This record gives sequence, structure tokens and C-alpha cells, in this order.
Amino acid sequence: MKQDTDLRIIELGLILPPAPKPVGVYKPVLIVDKFLYVSGQVPFLADGTMMKGKLGADMDTAAGKMAARQVGLTMLSTIKAHFGELKKIKRIVKTLGMVNCTPEFDSHPAVINGFSELMSEVFGEDNGVGVRSAVGTMLPMNIVVEVEAMFELY
Amino acid sequence: MKQDTDLRIIELGLILPPAPKPVGVYKPVLIVDKFLYVSGQVPFLADGTMMKGKLGADMDTAAGKMAARQVGLTMLSTIKAHFGELKKIKRIVKTLGMVNCTPEFDSHPAVINGFSELMSEVFGEDNGVGVRSAVGTMLPMNIVVEVEAMFELY
Amino acid sequence: MKQDTDLRIIELGLILPPAPKPVGVYKPVLIVDKFLYVSGQVPFLADGTMMKGKLGADMDTAAGKMAARQVGLTMLSTIKAHFGELKKIKRIVKTLGMVNCTPEFDSHPAVINGFSELMSEVFGEDNGVGVRSAVGTMLPMNIVVEVEAMFELY
Repeated sequence: MKQDTDLRIIELGLILPPAPKPVGVYKPVLIVDKFLYVSGQVPFLADGTMMKGKLGADMDTAAGKMAARQVGLTMLSTIKAHFGELKKIKRIVKTLGMVNCTPEFDSHPAVINGFSELMSEVFGEDNGVGVRSAVGTMLPMNIVVEVEAMFELY
Repeated sequence: MKQDTDLRIIELGLILPPAPKPVGVYKPVLIVDKFLYVSGQVPFLADGTMMKGKLGADMDTAAGKMAARQVGLTMLSTIKAHFGELKKIKRIVKTLGMVNCTPEFDSHPAVINGFSELMSEVFGEDNGVGVRSAVGTMLPMNIVVEVEAMFELY
Repeated sequence: MKQDTDLRIIELGLILPPAPKPVGVYKPVLIVDKFLYVSGQVPFLADGTMMKGKLGADMDTAAGKMAARQVGLTMLSTIKAHFGELKKIKRIVKTLGMVNCTPEFDSHPAVINGFSELMSEVFGEDNGVGVRSAVGTMLPMNIVVEVEAMFELY
């Protein structure tokens, strides 16, 4: 049975930030066959502010996890703006979560769980959970976390 | 001709470590159509110990390569535990190898070869070799190396 | 209408560097169904020299962007050498751009645009632009930038 994900977002009381404009030569989303690919998304708040910080330096794991959740909300907003109805999405397939951090930081999975738990809430415990890697990188403009993902469509 | 990969592992005398439990909100493996996606795997020894260290600091390339081989054995164990028979796998398609290292370390491909040579031994010189990137990142809990991969099924 | 990309490269006056040999256990390109996967490519000049440097330390964004363009030319050369006619490629689907940089560097997207603008010139404004992530990593042998990509075939 298909879930009405757009309705589900309303039921959960989620507020999507405005879909960000691309800051380079890429498409925000691309559909090929029955897969939807999303460019690396970064955390925006509902007022359009981008969340900045570095885990292990000026931000703790709880704040990083909240930023990763905002990445998820930003991604849903991007998909709605460029693809349309979220109910056409069947499941999340693959996530690459990249955390802006110091070499000493060691809780990347806990941070990226902020993104993954949102996807599970929105798409369900089976379809909302896919494969994942969570690693530490250096991100543009001191962004807290960046996530790219691939979804399967109905 | 299909290869019996489960038999091949016995012939090679390989000992698979226990399949690790997920440490976050993700599936260890996910099958979509005829592809098997594996979450980022890390190096476990046969006794369940996780291998830690940083290339360029407290670990040399030979030890890093051995850790990457253990990532491969851990990945095979994960696939067996969550998917079943390895003989349903036709080939490895894509590998992203991420090495925990200092900025000065420069032998990431040699480290990731530990994973890739194992895949070649197990799945054969054609089907066991796919495309690959090998880069340096910062990894959770000082894990030596993390590898994610995609396989094609028969 | 299919574009003759091999002719387009001549029209644009692009000079492809020699296709590099693999420096590890991987295939430069792999075709699965109607997709072409390319291993992480690095910047070579037409004379076969590899471009080295670290953004934020000894190289500025303009030079990094030029290196990313050379990665694109190297990738086209790799595809020609191992797959043949570029006109069999329909579009670029996905790019992962990895910049060798200091933790303070903040213009990864501007660097990777060097790669993405070339793809747009070669394959066109629609088919030459896909989804993308651009992040900072640590790269082998102090290489400036590494890019892996997936293309869809006709």
C-alpha cells in the first residue's frame, strides 16, 4: 500500500525549510528510470539560515544530530520543489553522510542518525531505512553536515 | 558459469569474523532489483575485535592494507548474515574506500588494495574487480578503514 | 537526437591527456546494464603530468578549478580508452567531487565547477549536468582533486 508521504509530513508537524538554490553546476535532483538521486544537501532552518559549525570543536553531538535532521528536512523540501509529490517515493536506498569535524571527533554515526531517524519517521521503519555510510570530511563554508541520497520511486 | 562462492571461501581457507550489528539507523545490506548495496563496513578480526588506528600516525601501510582485507571479510560475513548465499552475487560493481589518516599520508590506494585483492580472490579476476575510489577521511572511533560497495546479483 | 560527442570535443578544441593506468586493483570503467561507472579520476595535463597541491595551502581556488577541469578531460580520455565512442553516452547522472584541502578551505563547489562546467560544455546543458556532492578529503600523493562519476548510456 502506498503511503501518502505529503500527508504524513503534515501529521508529524514537520516544517520544511525553503528549498535552497544550487550553489554550483548541478541539478538538485535527477530522476533516472525509477530512481531519484539527490545532490548533497546541507542543513537549513525554517527561516532559511544555514547551520554552521564543526563537530569536536564548536558543536556537540546533540547539536550535530539536530543539524543532520535539518538536512533531511531540507532534502524533502528540495525533492518537493524539483520533483513534486513525495508520495511517488517508495523508499530510501542509500545515504552518504559527511560530517564536518575535527580529526578527534568519533561519533559520526550518532550525528547522521538525525537524518536517518527523520527518514524512518517519514517513510516508515522499512522503507525509510536504507544502507548508509557516515564519515568525517571537510565541508564548504563550515557547514555542519552534508548528506547525499538515492531513493527508489513507485 | 556461476561460481560457488561459499565453497570458494572454504577453499581459500578464509575465516569470516562475526557479522557486526548496525551502530545506527541503517540496514547492513539492501537489495533493489538485481543490485545489493552494503553499508560502510569496518575491519573486525575473527574474535570480534575492531581494528583501530590512523595511517600516517600510528599505523603503516602494510598494517592498513591488512585492515582493509578484514573489512572485506567483514563485508562477506555481513552479506552472508543478512542476504544468505554468496553464490547469488555475480560481481562487485563499485567500491568507495575511506582511509582514516593524517593529511600527510599518501598511499590510500595501496591500503584499499587489501579489500580489492580479497574481492578478486573470492569473486575472480573479472567479476571481483570493479570501479573504485580510495580517499582519506576521518572515521568514527578511530577505525582504520571503512568501505562501502555495490554488487550485481545473478 | 544523439549528439556526436567525439566530434563535439574536436569542435571545442579540447585536448585529452593520455588515459592513466590504474594504480590499484580496480577497473577504470565498468558498464552494467545501461550505466557506465568511472573510478575516481585525478588531474593529468596533456603531457602526462599529474597536478598536485592542496587548496587553502599552496593552491588557490582558480588553480583548483582548472585542476578539476583536467580531471574531466582525464575522465573523458579514460572512457574513450576503455569503452570507446563517447557518443554512446547519454548523460552524466552523478558526480562525487573530492578536494584535497586544509580544514579552513571553504570553496569546494567552486573548485568542482571546473569539472562540471566541462561536462556541461561537452554533453550539453541538460545531459551534461547531474546531481553532485563536493567535499573536502585527503587525497593520495597530494593530488589536487579526485572525481568519480556515473553516466547513463543510450
